Amino acid sequence: MKIELAENYGFCFGVKRAIKIAEENRDSATYGPLIHNSKEIARLDSDFKVGLVEDVKTFKSGEKAIVRTHGIVKDELAELKSSGVDVVDATCPFVTKPQEIAQEMSEAGYDVVIFGDEAHPEIKGVRSYATHGARVVTNVFDLMDLKFHDKIALIAQTTRKVEDYIEIANYLIPRHKEVRVFNTICNATFENQEAVRKLSKRADVMIIIGGKNSSNTKQLSSISHDYCASSYHIEDENDIDYSWFKNKELCGISAGASTPDWIIQNVVNAIESNINK
Amino acid sequence: MKIELAENYGFCFGVKRAIKIAEENRDSATYGPLIHNSKEIARLDSDFKVGLVEDVKTFKSGEKAIVRTHGIVKDELAELKSSGVDVVDATCPFVTKPQEIAQEMSEAGYDVVIFGDEAHPEIKGVRSYATHGARVVTNVFDLMDLKFHDKIALIAQTTRKVEDYIEIANYLIPRHKEVRVFNTICNATFENQEAVRKLSKRADVMIIIGGKNSSNTKQLSSISHDYCASSYHIEDENDIDYSWFKNKELCGISAGASTPDWIIQNVVNAIESNINK
Repeated sequence: MKIELAENYGFCFGVKRAIKIAEENRDSATYGPLIHNSKEIARLDSDFKVGLVEDVKTFKSGEKAIVRTHGIVKDELAELKSSGVDVVDATCPFVTKPQEIAQEMSEAGYDVVIFGDEAHPEIKGVRSYATHGARVVTNVFDLMDLKFHDKIALIAQTTRKVEDYIEIANYLIPRHKEVRVFNTICNATFENQEAVRKLSKRADVMIIIGGKNSSNTKQLSSISHDYCASSYHIEDENDIDYSWFKNKELCGISAGASTPDWIIQNVVNAIESNINK
Repeated sequence: MKIELAENYGFCFGVKRAIKIAEENRDSATYGPLIHNSKEIARLDSDFKVGLVEDVKTFKSGEKAIVRTHGIVKDELAELKSSGVDVVDATCPFVTKPQEIAQEMSEAGYDVVIFGDEAHPEIKGVRSYATHGARVVTNVFDLMDLKFHDKIALIAQTTRKVEDYIEIANYLIPRHKEVRVFNTICNATFENQEAVRKLSKRADVMIIIGGKNSSNTKQLSSISHDYCASSYHIEDENDIDYSWFKNKELCGISAGASTPDWIIQNVVNAIESNINK
Protein backbone atom coordinates (compact mmCIF):
# COMPACT_ATOMS: atom_id res chain seq x y z
CA MET A 1 0.00 0.00 0.00
CA LYS A 2 1.19 3.47 -0.88
CA ILE A 3 0.89 6.31 1.64
CA GLU A 4 0.34 9.82 0.31
CA LEU A 5 0.07 13.07 2.25
CA ALA A 6 -2.36 15.73 1.03
CA GLU A 7 -0.82 18.69 -0.83
CA ASN A 8 -1.72 20.96 2.10
CA TYR A 9 -2.31 19.79 5.66
CA GLY A 10 -1.62 20.50 9.29
CA PHE A 11 -0.50 23.58 11.17
CA CYS A 12 -1.80 26.86 9.86
CA PHE A 13 -0.32 30.32 10.28
CA GLY A 14 -2.46 31.13 13.34
CA VAL A 15 -1.58 27.91 15.17
CA LYS A 16 2.15 28.23 14.43
CA ARG A 17 2.02 31.82 15.67
CA ALA A 18 0.14 30.87 18.87
CA ILE A 19 2.59 28.07 19.71
CA LYS A 20 5.54 30.41 19.14
CA ILE A 21 3.91 32.97 21.46
CA ALA A 22 3.35 30.25 24.09
CA GLU A 23 6.93 28.99 23.83
CA GLU A 24 8.19 32.55 24.27
CA ASN A 25 6.09 32.99 27.42
CA ARG A 26 7.33 30.29 29.82
CA ASP A 27 5.74 29.99 33.26
CA SER A 28 2.41 31.37 32.11
CA ALA A 29 -1.02 29.89 31.44
CA THR A 30 -3.46 29.94 28.57
CA TYR A 31 -7.10 30.77 29.26
CA GLY A 32 -8.78 27.71 27.77
CA PRO A 33 -6.90 25.33 25.46
CA LEU A 34 -4.51 27.31 23.22
CA ILE A 35 -5.39 25.04 20.28
CA HIS A 36 -7.67 22.01 19.94
CA ASN A 37 -4.92 19.43 20.38
CA SER A 38 -4.45 18.02 23.87
CA LYS A 39 -1.11 16.39 23.07
CA GLU A 40 0.48 19.61 21.87
CA ILE A 41 -0.91 21.35 24.96
CA ALA A 42 0.68 18.67 27.18
CA ARG A 43 4.00 19.29 25.39
CA LEU A 44 3.81 23.04 26.05
CA ASP A 45 3.11 22.30 29.72
CA SER A 46 5.95 19.84 30.19
CA ASP A 47 8.57 21.60 28.02
CA PHE A 48 7.67 25.27 28.54
CA LYS A 49 5.65 25.33 31.76
CA VAL A 50 2.69 26.88 29.96
CA GLY A 51 -0.33 25.74 31.98
CA LEU A 52 -4.02 25.67 31.23
CA VAL A 53 -6.62 27.66 33.17
CA GLU A 54 -10.34 27.09 32.59
CA ASP A 55 -11.79 29.84 34.83
CA VAL A 56 -10.98 33.43 33.95
CA LYS A 57 -11.19 34.46 37.63
CA THR A 58 -8.21 32.24 38.47
CA PHE A 59 -5.81 34.79 36.97
CA LYS A 60 -4.36 37.23 39.52
CA SER A 61 -2.99 40.69 38.93
CA GLY A 62 0.54 40.54 37.53
CA GLU A 63 0.11 36.98 36.22
CA LYS A 64 0.44 36.28 32.55
CA ALA A 65 -2.60 35.04 30.60
CA ILE A 66 -2.27 33.85 27.01
CA VAL A 67 -5.44 34.30 24.95
CA ARG A 68 -6.14 31.13 22.92
CA THR A 69 -5.98 31.11 19.11
CA HIS A 70 -9.82 30.93 18.90
CA GLY A 71 -10.12 34.21 20.80
CA ILE A 72 -12.26 34.79 23.88
CA VAL A 73 -15.43 36.66 24.79
CA LYS A 74 -15.04 40.46 24.71
CA ASP A 75 -16.13 41.02 28.33
CA GLU A 76 -13.69 38.40 29.63
CA LEU A 77 -10.81 40.05 27.79
CA ALA A 78 -11.82 43.36 29.36
CA GLU A 79 -12.07 41.67 32.79
CA LEU A 80 -8.57 40.21 32.49
CA LYS A 81 -7.13 43.56 31.49
CA SER A 82 -8.95 45.53 34.20
CA SER A 83 -7.78 43.00 36.83
CA GLY A 84 -4.18 43.91 36.05
CA VAL A 85 -3.46 40.55 34.40
CA ASP A 86 -0.67 40.68 31.81
CA VAL A 87 -2.62 39.64 28.67
CA VAL A 88 -0.66 38.08 25.80
CA ASP A 89 -2.96 37.83 22.81
CA ALA A 90 -2.48 34.70 20.69
CA THR A 91 -5.84 35.12 18.94
CA CYS A 92 -5.40 34.17 15.29
CA PRO A 93 -5.54 37.37 13.18
CA PHE A 94 -8.06 35.57 10.95
CA VAL A 95 -10.34 35.34 14.02
CA THR A 96 -9.73 38.93 15.14
CA LYS A 97 -11.07 40.02 11.74
CA PRO A 98 -14.59 38.50 12.12
CA GLN A 99 -14.69 39.87 15.68
CA GLU A 100 -14.10 43.36 14.27
CA ILE A 101 -16.64 42.82 11.47
CA ALA A 102 -19.28 41.62 13.97
CA GLN A 103 -18.84 44.76 16.05
CA GLU A 104 -18.71 47.19 13.11
CA MET A 105 -21.72 45.68 11.32
CA SER A 106 -23.83 45.45 14.45
CA GLU A 107 -23.13 49.08 15.25
CA ALA A 108 -23.89 50.07 11.63
CA GLY A 109 -27.41 48.64 12.00
CA TYR A 110 -26.99 45.32 10.22
CA ASP A 111 -28.55 42.12 11.55
CA VAL A 112 -25.48 39.96 12.13
CA VAL A 113 -25.76 36.28 11.15
CA ILE A 114 -22.89 33.96 11.99
CA PHE A 115 -22.55 30.62 10.23
CA GLY A 116 -20.90 28.31 12.73
CA ASP A 117 -21.19 26.32 15.94
CA GLU A 118 -22.51 28.46 18.78
CA ALA A 119 -20.80 26.22 21.34
CA HIS A 120 -17.36 26.69 19.74
CA PRO A 121 -15.08 29.18 21.53
CA GLU A 122 -14.31 31.04 18.30
CA ILE A 123 -18.02 31.69 17.72
CA LYS A 124 -18.71 32.56 21.37
CA GLY A 125 -15.96 35.16 20.96
CA VAL A 126 -17.07 36.55 17.57
CA ARG A 127 -20.71 36.71 18.69
CA SER A 128 -19.76 38.65 21.84
CA TYR A 129 -18.43 41.48 19.65
CA ALA A 130 -21.81 42.07 17.96
CA THR A 131 -22.92 44.97 20.14
CA HIS A 132 -26.61 44.38 19.47
CA GLY A 133 -26.39 40.58 19.36
CA ALA A 134 -26.02 38.07 16.55
CA ARG A 135 -27.85 34.94 15.37
CA VAL A 136 -25.74 31.80 15.00
CA VAL A 137 -26.89 29.21 12.45
CA THR A 138 -25.49 25.93 11.19
CA ASN A 139 -27.80 25.41 8.20
CA VAL A 140 -30.66 26.86 6.18
CA PHE A 141 -33.29 25.25 8.44
CA ASP A 142 -32.01 27.31 11.36
CA LEU A 143 -32.78 30.44 9.33
CA MET A 144 -36.35 29.58 8.44
CA ASP A 145 -37.90 30.64 11.74
CA LEU A 146 -35.83 33.79 12.11
CA LYS A 147 -36.97 37.28 11.23
CA PHE A 148 -34.47 39.86 10.04
CA HIS A 149 -34.52 43.45 8.90
CA ASP A 150 -33.55 44.49 5.38
CA LYS A 151 -29.79 44.57 5.88
CA ILE A 152 -27.85 41.48 6.89
CA ALA A 153 -24.15 40.99 7.53
CA LEU A 154 -23.07 37.37 7.14
CA ILE A 155 -19.94 36.05 8.85
CA ALA A 156 -18.53 32.49 8.79
CA GLN A 157 -16.58 30.51 11.34
CA THR A 158 -13.04 30.45 9.91
CA THR A 159 -13.01 26.66 9.59
CA ARG A 160 -16.26 26.06 7.74
CA LYS A 161 -16.83 24.61 4.27
CA VAL A 162 -17.42 27.35 1.72
CA GLU A 163 -20.13 25.31 -0.07
CA ASP A 164 -22.20 25.23 3.12
CA TYR A 165 -21.64 28.95 3.63
CA ILE A 166 -22.89 29.69 0.12
CA GLU A 167 -26.12 27.80 0.88
CA ILE A 168 -26.78 30.17 3.77
CA ALA A 169 -26.07 33.19 1.55
CA ASN A 170 -28.33 31.80 -1.19
CA TYR A 171 -31.23 31.53 1.21
CA LEU A 172 -30.82 35.09 2.45
CA ILE A 173 -30.07 36.99 -0.80
CA PRO A 174 -33.51 36.72 -2.46
CA ARG A 175 -35.28 37.52 0.82
CA HIS A 176 -33.48 40.72 1.87
CA LYS A 177 -32.49 44.04 0.37
CA GLU A 178 -28.80 43.72 1.17
CA VAL A 179 -26.72 40.75 2.24
CA ARG A 180 -23.14 41.66 2.99
CA VAL A 181 -21.22 38.42 2.74
CA PHE A 182 -17.84 38.43 4.49
CA ASN A 183 -15.67 35.54 3.43
CA THR A 184 -14.04 34.91 6.80
CA ILE A 185 -13.19 31.29 6.04
CA CYS A 186 -9.41 31.24 6.31
CA ASN A 187 -7.19 30.36 3.37
CA ALA A 188 -5.38 27.57 5.19
CA THR A 189 -8.74 25.93 5.89
CA PHE A 190 -9.71 26.37 2.26
CA GLU A 191 -6.42 24.94 0.98
CA ASN A 192 -6.45 21.98 3.38
CA GLN A 193 -10.03 21.24 2.33
CA GLU A 194 -9.23 21.44 -1.39
CA ALA A 195 -6.28 19.10 -0.92
CA VAL A 196 -8.38 16.55 1.00
CA ARG A 197 -11.03 16.72 -1.72
CA LYS A 198 -8.45 15.93 -4.39
CA LEU A 199 -6.72 13.16 -2.48
CA SER A 200 -9.86 11.43 -1.16
CA LYS A 201 -11.17 11.05 -4.72
CA ARG A 202 -8.16 8.82 -5.50
CA ALA A 203 -7.51 7.09 -2.18
CA ASP A 204 -8.95 3.73 -1.00
CA VAL A 205 -8.60 4.72 2.63
CA MET A 206 -8.21 8.15 4.23
CA ILE A 207 -6.75 9.00 7.64
CA ILE A 208 -7.55 12.46 9.02
CA ILE A 209 -5.49 13.34 12.09
CA GLY A 210 -6.62 15.91 14.63
CA GLY A 211 -8.37 16.63 17.93
CA LYS A 212 -11.89 15.23 18.19
CA ASN A 213 -13.12 18.70 19.19
CA SER A 214 -11.20 20.46 16.38
CA SER A 215 -13.75 22.11 14.07
CA ASN A 216 -11.48 22.26 11.05
CA THR A 217 -10.44 18.61 11.44
CA LYS A 218 -14.11 17.59 11.58
CA GLN A 219 -14.72 19.48 8.31
CA LEU A 220 -11.77 17.71 6.66
CA SER A 221 -13.17 14.40 7.85
CA SER A 222 -16.61 15.25 6.45
CA ILE A 223 -15.17 16.17 3.03
CA SER A 224 -13.08 13.00 3.02
CA HIS A 225 -16.19 10.90 3.74
CA ASP A 226 -17.96 12.51 0.78
CA TYR A 227 -15.47 10.94 -1.62
CA CYS A 228 -13.94 7.98 0.23
CA ALA A 229 -16.18 5.66 2.30
CA SER A 230 -13.20 4.33 4.26
CA SER A 231 -12.32 7.61 6.00
CA TYR A 232 -11.21 7.69 9.63
CA HIS A 233 -10.72 10.61 12.01
CA ILE A 234 -8.00 9.76 14.57
CA GLU A 235 -6.21 11.77 17.23
CA ASP A 236 -2.94 9.83 17.01
CA GLU A 237 -1.45 6.43 16.12
CA ASN A 238 -3.14 4.75 19.12
CA ASP A 239 -6.55 5.16 17.44
CA ILE A 240 -5.54 3.16 14.37
CA ASP A 241 -7.23 -0.17 13.56
CA TYR A 242 -4.89 -1.82 11.07
CA SER A 243 -7.68 -3.85 9.48
CA TRP A 244 -8.63 -0.56 7.76
CA PHE A 245 -5.67 -1.02 5.39
CA LYS A 246 -6.44 -4.59 4.31
CA ASN A 247 -6.45 -4.89 0.50
CA LYS A 248 -6.05 -1.11 0.08
CA GLU A 249 -3.69 0.35 -2.48
CA LEU A 250 -3.58 4.04 -1.63
CA CYS A 251 -3.80 5.50 1.87
CA GLY A 252 -4.31 9.27 1.90
CA ILE A 253 -3.37 11.29 4.97
CA SER A 254 -4.28 14.77 6.07
CA ALA A 255 -4.34 16.61 9.37
CA GLY A 256 -6.16 19.54 10.93
CA ALA A 257 -4.67 23.00 11.42
CA SER A 258 -3.95 22.23 15.08
CA THR A 259 -2.19 18.91 14.50
CA PRO A 260 1.59 19.10 15.04
CA ASP A 261 3.97 17.49 12.57
CA TRP A 262 5.36 15.11 15.20
CA ILE A 263 1.95 13.46 15.61
CA ILE A 264 1.51 13.18 11.83
CA GLN A 265 4.97 11.61 11.57
CA ASN A 266 4.13 9.11 14.33
CA VAL A 267 1.00 8.06 12.43
CA VAL A 268 2.87 7.63 9.13
CA ASN A 269 5.61 5.61 10.88
CA ALA A 270 3.06 3.38 12.62
CA ILE A 271 1.18 2.62 9.39
CA GLU A 272 4.38 1.98 7.42
CA SER A 273 5.88 -0.35 9.97
CA ASN A 274 2.62 -2.27 10.27
CA ILE A 275 1.91 -2.76 6.57
CA ASN A 276 5.50 -3.88 5.97
CA LYS A 277 5.28 -6.58 8.64
CA MET B 1 -59.44 24.92 -24.18
CA LYS B 2 -59.37 26.85 -20.93
CA ILE B 3 -57.57 30.21 -20.70
CA GLU B 4 -55.97 31.14 -17.40
CA LEU B 5 -54.15 34.35 -16.50
CA ALA B 6 -51.15 34.16 -14.18
CA GLU B 7 -51.76 35.22 -10.56
CA ASN B 8 -49.57 38.29 -11.14
CA TYR B 9 -48.85 39.87 -14.50
CA GLY B 10 -48.59 43.11 -16.39
CA PHE B 11 -48.12 46.70 -15.32
CA CYS B 12 -45.90 47.24 -12.31
CA PHE B 13 -45.86 50.17 -9.91
CA GLY B 14 -43.09 51.99 -11.80
CA VAL B 15 -44.81 51.69 -15.19
CA LYS B 16 -48.20 52.80 -13.85
CA ARG B 17 -46.50 55.77 -12.18
CA ALA B 18 -44.61 56.72 -15.37
CA ILE B 19 -47.76 56.59 -17.51
CA LYS B 20 -49.64 58.72 -14.98
CA ILE B 21 -46.79 61.26 -15.06
CA ALA B 22 -46.87 61.28 -18.88
CA GLU B 23 -50.65 61.71 -18.98
CA GLU B 24 -50.34 64.62 -16.56
CA ASN B 25 -47.73 66.30 -18.78
CA ARG B 26 -49.50 66.86 -22.12
CA ASP B 27 -47.57 68.51 -24.96
CA SER B 28 -44.22 67.25 -23.78
CA ALA B 29 -41.79 64.55 -24.94
CA THR B 30 -40.04 61.62 -23.32
CA TYR B 31 -36.29 61.22 -23.81
CA GLY B 32 -36.20 57.70 -25.23
CA PRO B 33 -39.22 55.37 -25.00
CA LEU B 34 -41.03 55.88 -21.67
CA ILE B 35 -41.59 52.12 -21.38
CA HIS B 36 -40.73 49.20 -23.66
CA ASN B 37 -44.12 49.03 -25.32
CA SER B 38 -44.50 50.81 -28.63
CA LYS B 39 -48.29 50.54 -28.68
CA GLU B 40 -48.71 52.25 -25.33
CA ILE B 41 -46.25 54.94 -26.46
CA ALA B 42 -48.35 55.51 -29.60
CA ARG B 43 -51.44 55.88 -27.38
CA LEU B 44 -49.70 58.52 -25.23
CA ASP B 45 -48.73 60.39 -28.39
CA SER B 46 -52.18 60.35 -29.99
CA ASP B 47 -54.24 60.86 -26.80
CA PHE B 48 -51.94 63.10 -24.73
CA LYS B 49 -49.52 64.64 -27.24
CA VAL B 50 -46.56 63.16 -25.42
CA GLY B 51 -43.92 62.72 -28.11
CA LEU B 52 -40.70 60.74 -28.24
CA VAL B 53 -37.26 62.32 -28.62
CA GLU B 54 -34.20 60.14 -29.25
CA ASP B 55 -31.46 62.81 -29.09
CA VAL B 56 -30.96 64.64 -25.81
CA LYS B 57 -29.74 67.76 -27.66
CA THR B 58 -33.18 68.18 -29.30
CA PHE B 59 -34.61 69.57 -26.07
CA LYS B 60 -34.56 73.38 -25.85
CA SER B 61 -34.57 75.56 -22.76
CA GLY B 62 -38.07 75.84 -21.31
CA GLU B 63 -39.29 72.64 -23.00
CA LYS B 64 -40.49 69.73 -20.91
CA ALA B 65 -38.52 66.45 -20.98
CA ILE B 66 -39.90 63.33 -19.30
CA VAL B 67 -37.19 60.93 -18.09
CA ARG B 68 -38.11 57.35 -19.04
CA THR B 69 -38.93 54.71 -16.39
CA HIS B 70 -35.56 52.97 -17.01
CA GLY B 71 -33.69 56.15 -16.05
CA ILE B 72 -31.01 57.85 -18.13
CA VAL B 73 -27.25 58.41 -17.97
CA LYS B 74 -26.16 60.75 -15.16
CA ASP B 75 -24.34 63.23 -17.44
CA GLU B 76 -27.33 63.51 -19.77
CA LEU B 77 -29.62 64.30 -16.85
CA ALA B 78 -27.18 67.01 -15.78
CA GLU B 79 -27.01 68.32 -19.37
CA LEU B 80 -30.81 68.58 -19.61
CA LYS B 81 -30.99 70.43 -16.32
CA SER B 82 -28.12 72.79 -17.10
CA SER B 83 -29.70 73.60 -20.49
CA GLY B 84 -32.76 74.97 -18.71
CA VAL B 85 -34.98 72.09 -19.84
CA ASP B 86 -37.92 71.41 -17.50
CA VAL B 87 -37.09 67.83 -16.39
CA VAL B 88 -39.96 65.63 -15.20
CA ASP B 89 -38.46 62.49 -13.70
CA ALA B 90 -40.46 59.31 -14.36
CA THR B 91 -37.54 57.03 -13.43
CA CYS B 92 -38.94 54.06 -11.51
CA PRO B 93 -37.94 54.43 -7.83
CA PHE B 94 -36.71 50.82 -7.95
CA VAL B 95 -34.22 51.96 -10.61
CA THR B 96 -33.21 55.12 -8.76
CA LYS B 97 -32.15 52.86 -5.87
CA PRO B 98 -29.47 50.86 -7.80
CA GLN B 99 -28.26 54.17 -9.31
CA GLU B 100 -27.69 55.48 -5.77
CA ILE B 101 -26.07 52.21 -4.66
CA ALA B 102 -23.69 52.25 -7.66
CA GLN B 103 -22.54 55.76 -6.80
CA GLU B 104 -22.23 55.19 -3.05
CA MET B 105 -20.38 51.86 -3.38
CA SER B 106 -18.02 53.12 -6.07
CA GLU B 107 -17.12 56.12 -3.93
CA ALA B 108 -16.66 53.85 -0.87
CA GLY B 109 -13.94 51.92 -2.72
CA TYR B 110 -15.92 48.86 -3.79
CA ASP B 111 -15.50 47.29 -7.22
CA VAL B 112 -19.02 47.59 -8.63
CA VAL B 113 -20.34 44.60 -10.59
CA ILE B 114 -23.70 44.91 -12.33
CA PHE B 115 -25.57 41.80 -13.42
CA GLY B 116 -27.53 42.81 -16.49
CA ASP B 117 -27.48 43.78 -20.14
CA GLU B 118 -24.99 46.55 -20.81
CA ALA B 119 -26.96 47.68 -23.87
CA HIS B 120 -30.17 48.14 -21.86
CA PRO B 121 -30.98 51.76 -20.95
CA GLU B 122 -31.52 50.90 -17.28
CA ILE B 123 -28.00 49.46 -17.04
CA LYS B 124 -26.43 52.29 -19.06
CA GLY B 125 -27.99 54.59 -16.48
CA VAL B 126 -27.03 52.61 -13.36
CA ARG B 127 -23.47 52.10 -14.63
CA SER B 128 -23.06 55.84 -15.26
CA TYR B 129 -23.55 56.51 -11.54
CA ALA B 130 -20.54 54.37 -10.52
CA THR B 131 -18.06 57.21 -10.17
CA HIS B 132 -15.05 54.97 -10.76
CA GLY B 133 -16.71 52.71 -13.31
CA ALA B 134 -18.50 49.36 -13.10
CA ARG B 135 -18.25 45.99 -14.81
CA VAL B 136 -21.42 44.64 -16.40
CA VAL B 137 -21.80 40.86 -16.66
CA THR B 138 -24.54 38.55 -17.90
CA ASN B 139 -23.16 35.26 -16.59
CA VAL B 140 -20.34 33.59 -14.66
CA PHE B 141 -18.19 33.22 -17.79
CA ASP B 142 -18.07 37.01 -18.13
CA LEU B 143 -16.52 37.14 -14.64
CA MET B 144 -13.74 34.65 -15.24
CA ASP B 145 -11.39 37.00 -17.03
CA LEU B 146 -11.98 39.94 -14.72
CA LYS B 147 -9.75 40.96 -11.83
CA PHE B 148 -11.24 42.61 -8.79
CA HIS B 149 -10.02 43.92 -5.47
CA ASP B 150 -11.10 42.43 -2.16
CA LYS B 151 -14.39 44.26 -1.82
CA ILE B 152 -17.17 43.88 -4.36
CA ALA B 153 -20.62 45.46 -4.51
CA LEU B 154 -23.04 43.45 -6.60
CA ILE B 155 -26.11 45.05 -8.18
CA ALA B 156 -28.75 43.44 -10.42
CA GLN B 157 -30.86 44.81 -13.24
CA THR B 158 -34.33 45.12 -11.70
CA THR B 159 -35.87 42.65 -14.15
CA ARG B 160 -33.44 39.74 -13.86
CA LYS B 161 -34.08 36.20 -12.57
CA VAL B 162 -32.92 35.81 -8.98
CA GLU B 163 -31.54 32.29 -9.65
CA ASP B 164 -29.15 33.71 -12.25
CA TYR B 165 -28.16 36.51 -9.89
CA ILE B 166 -27.34 33.98 -7.16
CA GLU B 167 -25.01 32.15 -9.56
CA ILE B 168 -23.02 35.35 -10.00
CA ALA B 169 -22.87 35.86 -6.21
CA ASN B 170 -21.82 32.24 -5.69
CA TYR B 171 -18.88 32.65 -8.03
CA LEU B 172 -17.68 35.80 -6.31
CA ILE B 173 -18.18 34.93 -2.61
CA PRO B 174 -15.44 32.28 -2.22
CA ARG B 175 -12.98 34.40 -4.21
CA HIS B 176 -13.20 37.73 -2.38
CA LYS B 177 -13.09 39.04 1.17
CA GLU B 178 -16.43 40.82 0.98
CA VAL B 179 -19.28 40.60 -1.49
CA ARG B 180 -22.05 43.06 -0.77
CA VAL B 181 -25.08 41.68 -2.54
CA PHE B 182 -27.85 44.21 -3.16
CA ASN B 183 -31.10 42.57 -4.10
CA THR B 184 -32.24 45.20 -6.57
CA ILE B 185 -34.53 42.83 -8.48
CA CYS B 186 -37.93 44.44 -8.05
CA ASN B 187 -40.78 42.71 -6.28
CA ALA B 188 -43.18 43.01 -9.18
CA THR B 189 -40.63 41.25 -11.39
CA PHE B 190 -40.18 38.58 -8.75
CA GLU B 191 -43.95 38.08 -8.32
CA ASN B 192 -44.65 38.00 -12.06
CA GLN B 193 -41.85 35.44 -12.46
CA GLU B 194 -43.13 33.25 -9.62
CA ALA B 195 -46.63 33.31 -11.09
CA VAL B 196 -45.36 32.33 -14.57
CA ARG B 197 -43.34 29.51 -13.01
CA LYS B 198 -46.45 28.13 -11.29
CA LEU B 199 -48.74 28.47 -14.29
CA SER B 200 -46.32 27.18 -16.93
CA LYS B 201 -45.89 23.94 -14.95
CA ARG B 202 -49.60 23.22 -15.51
CA ALA B 203 -50.29 24.77 -18.92
CA ASP B 204 -50.05 23.03 -22.32
CA VAL B 205 -49.38 26.29 -24.08
CA MET B 206 -48.15 29.62 -22.70
CA ILE B 207 -48.58 33.10 -24.21
CA ILE B 208 -46.29 35.83 -22.86
CA ILE B 209 -47.30 39.31 -24.01
CA GLY B 210 -44.86 42.23 -24.14
CA GLY B 211 -42.45 44.30 -26.19
CA LYS B 212 -39.72 42.31 -27.95
CA ASN B 213 -37.11 44.62 -26.39
CA SER B 214 -38.67 44.43 -22.90
CA SER B 215 -36.13 42.79 -20.57
CA ASN B 216 -38.65 41.63 -17.99
CA THR B 217 -40.92 40.11 -20.67
CA LYS B 218 -37.94 38.20 -22.09
CA GLN B 219 -37.24 36.81 -18.60
CA LEU B 220 -40.88 35.71 -18.23
CA SER B 221 -40.65 34.03 -21.60
CA SER B 222 -37.43 32.24 -20.60
CA ILE B 223 -38.99 30.94 -17.36
CA SER B 224 -42.08 29.83 -19.24
CA HIS B 225 -39.94 27.89 -21.73
CA ASP B 226 -38.23 26.10 -18.83
CA TYR B 227 -41.51 24.41 -17.88
CA CYS B 228 -43.69 24.53 -21.00
CA ALA B 229 -42.18 23.73 -24.41
CA SER B 230 -45.06 25.46 -26.23
CA SER B 231 -44.33 28.99 -24.98
CA TYR B 232 -44.68 32.01 -27.24
CA HIS B 233 -43.60 35.63 -26.73
CA ILE B 234 -45.94 37.96 -28.64
CA GLU B 235 -46.37 41.72 -28.80
CA ASP B 236 -50.11 41.65 -29.46
CA GLU B 237 -52.90 39.57 -31.01
CA ASN B 238 -51.49 40.04 -34.52
CA ASP B 239 -48.54 37.80 -33.64
CA ILE B 240 -50.75 34.81 -32.78
CA ASP B 241 -50.60 31.61 -34.85
CA TYR B 242 -53.79 29.75 -33.92
CA SER B 243 -52.28 26.35 -34.70
CA TRP B 244 -50.46 26.76 -31.34
CA PHE B 245 -53.71 25.94 -29.57
CA LYS B 246 -54.56 22.76 -31.46
CA ASN B 247 -55.29 19.88 -29.05
CA LYS B 248 -54.32 22.00 -26.02
CA GLU B 249 -56.36 21.99 -22.84
CA LEU B 250 -54.93 24.83 -20.80
CA CYS B 251 -53.55 28.08 -22.22
CA GLY B 252 -51.65 30.16 -19.65
CA ILE B 253 -51.24 33.89 -20.20
CA SER B 254 -48.89 36.40 -18.65
CA ALA B 255 -47.57 39.81 -19.64
CA GLY B 256 -44.53 41.96 -18.94
CA ALA B 257 -44.50 44.94 -16.60
CA SER B 258 -44.82 47.34 -19.54
CA THR B 259 -47.78 45.62 -21.20
CA PRO B 260 -51.03 47.56 -20.80
CA ASP B 261 -54.24 45.77 -19.85
CA TRP B 262 -55.95 46.72 -23.11
CA ILE B 263 -53.41 44.73 -25.14
CA ILE B 264 -53.78 41.72 -22.80
CA GLN B 265 -57.55 41.92 -23.18
CA ASN B 266 -57.27 42.06 -26.99
CA VAL B 267 -55.15 38.89 -26.91
CA VAL B 268 -57.57 37.03 -24.65
CA ASN B 269 -60.53 38.09 -26.83
CA ALA B 270 -58.75 37.00 -30.00
CA ILE B 271 -57.91 33.55 -28.65
CA GLU B 272 -61.38 33.02 -27.20
CA SER B 273 -63.20 34.01 -30.35
CA ASN B 274 -60.90 31.81 -32.46
CA ILE B 275 -61.10 28.63 -30.38
CA ASN B 276 -64.88 28.93 -30.16
CA LYS B 277 -65.21 29.09 -33.91
